[in-house]
Amino acid sequence: MREKVLHKTRRFDGKVVTLEHWLIEKPDGKQGVYEVLLHPGASACIPVDEEGNVYLVRQDRIAIGRDTLEIPAGKLEPGEDPLEAAKRELEEETGLSANNWKHLVSQYPAAAYDQEIVHIYLATGLHRGTAHPDEDEWVSVEVQPLEQLFRRVMNGELQDSKTVTAILMAHSLLCS
Amino acid sequence: MREKVLHKTRRFDGKVVTLEHWLIEKPDGKQGVYEVLLHPGASACIPVDEEGNVYLVRQDRIAIGRDTLEIPAGKLEPGEDPLEAAKRELEEETGLSANNWKHLVSQYPAAAYDQEIVHIYLATGLHRGTAHPDEDEWVSVEVQPLEQLFRRVMNGELQDSKTVTAILMAHSLLCS
Repeated sequence: MREKVLHKTRRFDGKVVTLEHWLIEKPDGKQGVYEVLLHPGASACIPVDEEGNVYLVRQDRIAIGRDTLEIPAGKLEPGEDPLEAAKRELEEETGLSANNWKHLVSQYPAAAYDQEIVHIYLATGLHRGTAHPDEDEWVSVEVQPLEQLFRRVMNGELQDSKTVTAILMAHSLLCS
Repeated sequence: MREKVLHKTRRFDGKVVTLEHWLIEKPDGKQGVYEVLLHPGASACIPVDEEGNVYLVRQDRIAIGRDTLEIPAGKLEPGEDPLEAAKRELEEETGLSANNWKHLVSQYPAAAYDQEIVHIYLATGLHRGTAHPDEDEWVSVEVQPLEQLFRRVMNGELQDSKTVTAILMAHSLLCS
């Protein structure tokens, strides 16, 4: 890092995001102010069954004014292990458990201003449990072949970044 | 959309992000409050030359406390066309222009709370101009073969979401 944080000021405390102003010193000695979102991080997984079908959830995304097709995901609880969070979210949103977990990548959605990191896993060896969605989540599960989802991603039809990454990586691992 | 926005309250006005509280009505009639980041959107491109080399920029990302290797990208100016913004950012950050532009995907980094959408393009037919980075951007250009970047993404080494998407999609289009 060639920039140095001199001072942080809390500007907004939210349920999901907290916003701070950071006064920084640039490499040339000048000062500047950054807006930084604090976020606890999140976990997500792409569950693929033995026939190559993927379990996705369709979710209302009020911020962008539409619904999106996404892999199961959710925020980390305080101190929660990312893999445990991915297992919890998979079961909460789809009712599935998985025998095999492989870490694909941990990615920053918006590194310029957002501390969120999303840990993405491949989940295979699926078996059914009982779905119990969070009270305030209204999701519906959709099952589609990974090959078809790959083509949809390549056509630009899927637009949730963690979902795009997961489908492309899973396709490379399982279908190449 | 099964949720309805009843009221919006501006909570923070920033240079990069603006934060609002949205009072919404859920499908069951209950009310809830969402934190929503307003953002003008961004454009990015993956520039690949005729030898299969990709031009990336290494950038200080103060929010996450490290530098990252990213494709050239930047916020949209008010009213700016996404493709024009991608061309502008490519030239500002790398000094390159491109003859051929192909839209890959427009993706939401964090659809749960952030309106940002990132328009990602593949840029080929590259020729050199003169780099003129923005005054407050401290970037250095790094050139790596697309095949090598693909392996690094599959190893989880690259962590910027738009960069992960762009490398995986460009690799599928150009190397399969």
